[in-house]
Amino acid sequence: MRAADLTAPPHHEVAGRSAAPRSRAELTGPARLASFFAPRSVAVVGASDTSAWARFVAASARAVAFAGPLIPVHPLHKTVFGITPARSLRELTEPADLAFILVPQSAVEDVLDEAAWAGIHGAIVLASEYREAGPAGQAHQERLAARAAAHGITLLGPNCLGFVNMHAAVAPFALTVPPQLQAGPVGIALQSGALASAVLGFARSRAIGVSTLVTLGNEAMITASDVLEYLVADERTEVIALFLEQIGDAVSFARAAMKADRLGKPIVALKAGSSPAGQRAALSHTGALAGDDAVVNAALRQLNVIRVTSIEELLTTAALLGYCGRPRGRRMGALTASGGACDLIADRASAVGIEIPPFAEATKASIAPHLPPGLEVPNPLDVTGHFLADRRDDPLTPIDHALDAAVADPGLDFVLFCGVTLPEARPPSEAIAYLAEERVTWIGERIASAPIPVIPVSTVCVDLTEYQRGLLTRRGVHPLGGIDLGVRALGHALDWAEGRGKASAWAGRRTEAPSMWHRRSLGHIDATSMRPDESSCWSENEARELLAGFGVPVVPAELVDSPDAAAHAAARIGFPVALKVCSSQIPHKSDIGAVALGLGTAEEVKASCAQILAAGERAAAGHVEGVLVAPMRGAAGIELLAGVKADPVFGLVLAVGLGGIWAEVLGDVSLRVLPVDHEEVGRMLGELRGLPLLRGARGRTPADLEAVADVIMRLCAAARHLGPALGAVEVNPLWVNGDHIEALDASIVTEGNIR
Amino acid sequence: MRAADLTAPPHHEVAGRSAAPRSRAELTGPARLASFFAPRSVAVVGASDTSAWARFVAASARAVAFAGPLIPVHPLHKTVFGITPARSLRELTEPADLAFILVPQSAVEDVLDEAAWAGIHGAIVLASEYREAGPAGQAHQERLAARAAAHGITLLGPNCLGFVNMHAAVAPFALTVPPQLQAGPVGIALQSGALASAVLGFARSRAIGVSTLVTLGNEAMITASDVLEYLVADERTEVIALFLEQIGDAVSFARAAMKADRLGKPIVALKAGSSPAGQRAALSHTGALAGDDAVVNAALRQLNVIRVTSIEELLTTAALLGYCGRPRGRRMGALTASGGACDLIADRASAVGIEIPPFAEATKASIAPHLPPGLEVPNPLDVTGHFLADRRDDPLTPIDHALDAAVADPGLDFVLFCGVTLPEARPPSEAIAYLAEERVTWIGERIASAPIPVIPVSTVCVDLTEYQRGLLTRRGVHPLGGIDLGVRALGHALDWAEGRGKASAWAGRRTEAPSMWHRRSLGHIDATSMRPDESSCWSENEARELLAGFGVPVVPAELVDSPDAAAHAAARIGFPVALKVCSSQIPHKSDIGAVALGLGTAEEVKASCAQILAAGERAAAGHVEGVLVAPMRGAAGIELLAGVKADPVFGLVLAVGLGGIWAEVLGDVSLRVLPVDHEEVGRMLGELRGLPLLRGARGRTPADLEAVADVIMRLCAAARHLGPALGAVEVNPLWVNGDHIEALDASIVTEGNIR
Repeated sequence: MRAADLTAPPHHEVAGRSAAPRSRAELTGPARLASFFAPRSVAVVGASDTSAWARFVAASARAVAFAGPLIPVHPLHKTVFGITPARSLRELTEPADLAFILVPQSAVEDVLDEAAWAGIHGAIVLASEYREAGPAGQAHQERLAARAAAHGITLLGPNCLGFVNMHAAVAPFALTVPPQLQAGPVGIALQSGALASAVLGFARSRAIGVSTLVTLGNEAMITASDVLEYLVADERTEVIALFLEQIGDAVSFARAAMKADRLGKPIVALKAGSSPAGQRAALSHTGALAGDDAVVNAALRQLNVIRVTSIEELLTTAALLGYCGRPRGRRMGALTASGGACDLIADRASAVGIEIPPFAEATKASIAPHLPPGLEVPNPLDVTGHFLADRRDDPLTPIDHALDAAVADPGLDFVLFCGVTLPEARPPSEAIAYLAEERVTWIGERIASAPIPVIPVSTVCVDLTEYQRGLLTRRGVHPLGGIDLGVRALGHALDWAEGRGKASAWAGRRTEAPSMWHRRSLGHIDATSMRPDESSCWSENEARELLAGFGVPVVPAELVDSPDAAAHAAARIGFPVALKVCSSQIPHKSDIGAVALGLGTAEEVKASCAQILAAGERAAAGHVEGVLVAPMRGAAGIELLAGVKADPVFGLVLAVGLGGIWAEVLGDVSLRVLPVDHEEVGRMLGELRGLPLLRGARGRTPADLEAVADVIMRLCAAARHLGPALGAVEVNPLWVNGDHIEALDASIVTEGNIR
Repeated sequence: MRAADLTAPPHHEVAGRSAAPRSRAELTGPARLASFFAPRSVAVVGASDTSAWARFVAASARAVAFAGPLIPVHPLHKTVFGITPARSLRELTEPADLAFILVPQSAVEDVLDEAAWAGIHGAIVLASEYREAGPAGQAHQERLAARAAAHGITLLGPNCLGFVNMHAAVAPFALTVPPQLQAGPVGIALQSGALASAVLGFARSRAIGVSTLVTLGNEAMITASDVLEYLVADERTEVIALFLEQIGDAVSFARAAMKADRLGKPIVALKAGSSPAGQRAALSHTGALAGDDAVVNAALRQLNVIRVTSIEELLTTAALLGYCGRPRGRRMGALTASGGACDLIADRASAVGIEIPPFAEATKASIAPHLPPGLEVPNPLDVTGHFLADRRDDPLTPIDHALDAAVADPGLDFVLFCGVTLPEARPPSEAIAYLAEERVTWIGERIASAPIPVIPVSTVCVDLTEYQRGLLTRRGVHPLGGIDLGVRALGHALDWAEGRGKASAWAGRRTEAPSMWHRRSLGHIDATSMRPDESSCWSENEARELLAGFGVPVVPAELVDSPDAAAHAAARIGFPVALKVCSSQIPHKSDIGAVALGLGTAEEVKASCAQILAAGERAAAGHVEGVLVAPMRGAAGIELLAGVKADPVFGLVLAVGLGGIWAEVLGDVSLRVLPVDHEEVGRMLGELRGLPLLRGARGRTPADLEAVADVIMRLCAAARHLGPALGAVEVNPLWVNGDHIEALDASIVTEGNIR
């Protein structure tokens, strides 16, 4: 098939569409994806009854009761899916909105050409051996995407298993859609398609309704950010669940996430890669403290994206946010029929910062008549099973009456209701079944009318049976799967609610040329001696000068080249002093004994200076600039660390933490993707475990946190002006004693490509 | 019924038993409990068809196919359980081994008398309003236990829902036994009976077989430790799962746990109470750092008891240890059919310290032919779904061949197998069903024959269906519920295996009188002024003297009472010096400005001394002993904290951590229940995050850790000799500079009952 064949697309008019759009935005924008994800007819190219993929696609269509035609296309087979297939897309007898292309990689592009000829505007490509197969595969993939774009075809994949749109009842999906999967509020996008089985399996088990699930494949055209934007715009999606292996285009992702936050549509992300295996070695503390995964944590939190660590937590959190209303605060009432459940709830709630205040007196008074006489009415409450001793005709049990009272308690923000217990199947006794069903109806109505959210939760995470799913969801009761997952989800939901409206987009990685100032500042180092792709440490003196240029206060110091000069400098500065080697080749000075602290006399200074010069020569012969002489800063004050490093995905990342010897030992650090403002830096300081020390614990002078934040902002400015050459800029220690703030040491690493 | 009625027990001879034992050990020892938990006949006293409890008991007997008679006993009803009940235990027409007593609390003791008359040796009491109802209830409970003991009746409860013994097929159990619950290796004891439904529900869902499940109720006679001992001795129990609200008798618990460790029978405990709400305020850092729950953590770890935080984790860990063999090390091979599953496994494994080394070349060569051409064979491995494109007749899939190769890899200790996928129900096609079943048979055999353990795991935690449970468990395949729970369980199992043989029992709380030495040491404080139940702080000088008496090196210091005396002392000691108020009424000296550091001249000393005396008088008029003058210890060295506190459950607890201002800010502390030996103290130091500082990071002098441990052992000796009066003994800071170790400050709190 050649491009010339594109002249007469037979179904173009039939489908009533305009000429093919060509720009990426047109092909993958939310409006275009809304129609891409709701095709009225689907051609399955390469379908055969011997392929499990094809059988899955046919079964998925049946599972969601797809109303449109599912058109098998195969050049050789007589029957597929029990009907005669079209021999190719050119021979379709009815229009198709989407082609699900199952053919081998080598045949895919020809099929795309045929699809274009047939007026098809969307395609899914199953074949692999593209990007994941190395440079040749990457080239194939780029050619594929370009071909699709040239045809005006929106392309999902390759190496992709398709999607399921429950509300549109369409599932071009090469895995199993579990029976009785429900349509609902949770939109899902997965960077690992094969996980979709597990994700949908769990969703079905816990009756968590899905809007659209998309497997992303290699993202040759439609990216994770595109699908995120589509889900944010999709009215049937109330909450978005993501499985991410990598965030490719951080800026687009941030834009979509910001929009979701504005709309109040929570995003829950299971982001893989938290193991340190894949993290790169780093020259600076900032690099080590701001490891890849810690940066992901910070970056997602800045966008108010909830991060979770398991599929179960992903979907349970999404279910809570999609079904259960949004609590206004952290004060929980908890109702159970088990003392052990109360214990578990209290422990898990404490772990995520949920409060469990006592019930109001009026609440207690309302609940007490439904409990055994003399029992307390504590929160969390165990209503006990005392009522089981006698026959009952009332559908409501004591825990239901407790719910009725608790939702009116003015001291609560929400109620955790661990009281939905149902038989696995409809009881044979009509009377008992009636009682159970009446009770669920009452609970559903009470939840709907309650002035505060009610979060139903089961004690453990087991499947809801078909009977239970039907009974509960029809009545709007959506119990979360177990106390552990449920309370964890609540913690996430509360964090999300508190983070709303504070999200800030990332600047992303800068790629433009260094600024004027930057080129000037590089005069300090011999850029011509550096090779591309090589990291380069600046000497401490060079780093001090750059930072001072941006107004960062640096401790006064003199660079000397002999013991005698050191002694004179020390006399000018005042004893005691510190001596340090100054060399771009010695980033960790104290490791080689090239630092001396607390020198009180000229003799000590001379002796130490000689030792340091000797150690420096041993470590970096010919690259020692000299020895820095600086005044000692005493036991008073506190040592912080502040640094900015370049992250390949997110751009500049600021780290603020405890410094000095504590930096690497304790890892007490707060991270942000830049830009940040002065206030945000203040919040970073507020997150440190060491905050009490800054605030003046144990009789210390309280630090001037405003002034500290100001210095850190100046450090950020210095880092920004190094442009794409920046590796890391770091001050450690940043000494703080009241409003006296000084960089006691400074280091800068630039990448080799600064010419 | 009176005691006189005991003379003629009609069934005593029938049952062929010896005279009733009376000692607690006889009534609740493992041999006695083995027969208690396997009754051949059960009388249900107070049974009626209107009581849900009674219906549950009858249904539970049916659910486990109880072979013996279940005898209803009720004075009024004509029929119960479809038969005519006995009017009382005196009117039984057949012998009963056990009475399940459902009558109200007020009638229980009479029923016990009747049970004794009838020769019944075991009873379960459902009624509540005992210990949980306050002092009167506690008295009832003690009377109940005494009555049972007098009759030689072993009693479970009260406020108890009974037990299930799956291997003996008996279930006097007032909750639902889920259908198809399997007999198996997991013994369970619960301090919250109502949780049993959730526990058994999860066990059934994941096909986790149970040996005996016991709900403990109020433990009037049979305690948690008794049941633990029984389960340790029970041959059908391979692993023990506990839900604990409190560890009542710590010494018995420790004894049973030590035995379990010797036998290689793991104990997994879900211990409630981790929320700080219930924790008591503490006067010392040691008290704050060694909070109740942190002590529980340390205590359980010392016994090699695995601690978990959810029911799902409890049972998944137990299932792994009960079914899957015990890995010899941490090197894991992981096989999946999904890149996303690989990501999740890598992340979760990293979080629990599991290594995932590359496969051996021979392993790769064996696996490669089963993968698409050119694909790498990394670990973890995604076999992909490429084979689904074509029809297949071989029951084995690529992941099975990968399993076959991986179990022979010499670089692996175990294989995580995320490849057991089965349809929910038997497929209608006999050929497909046959393939699936043949495959599971092969997997079961391969697991059984593999030289290293194979841990099957599903991707997410959903129920196994009845078809899947039957198919898998008959073939010895027991997949764990999801990657998240499965890998967490693996981490626990590996920790347990590494901890084996190192468990050490606790000494428990000492209650004997203070030793001779102790009484002597108390001469320092005015014991007559103390009220019982009141905590008392010693002055620093008193504390220094006690510690010095045990050989703890204390910094030289002089107690002075005037600025002039302070200046003279400082001159003797050498400048710079530190000044501190000395008073039993001022535990936190620096908070009130009664500490001055780094004073370099006599003038500074005088001025500071005057200020400190004034501050001391303001804070504790009339209770200031004077001012301590001590030499400054400099910037070199590191400050630790070492303290011993009395825990009401476990006895003396040692805390070792970073000290000085870092103690409360960072909470870097290691805890042990005493006794410990010198080596164990060394291990405690090795657990600190601050260890690199002790080891000499960044050019510091390495600490003499042997000498530090020796000082801490001396501190422990001092604490032990305070006997039951001990509240807390603490040295903070314990200054360490190489082998120079000194207590720079010391505090002691004793309880008021020291007279």
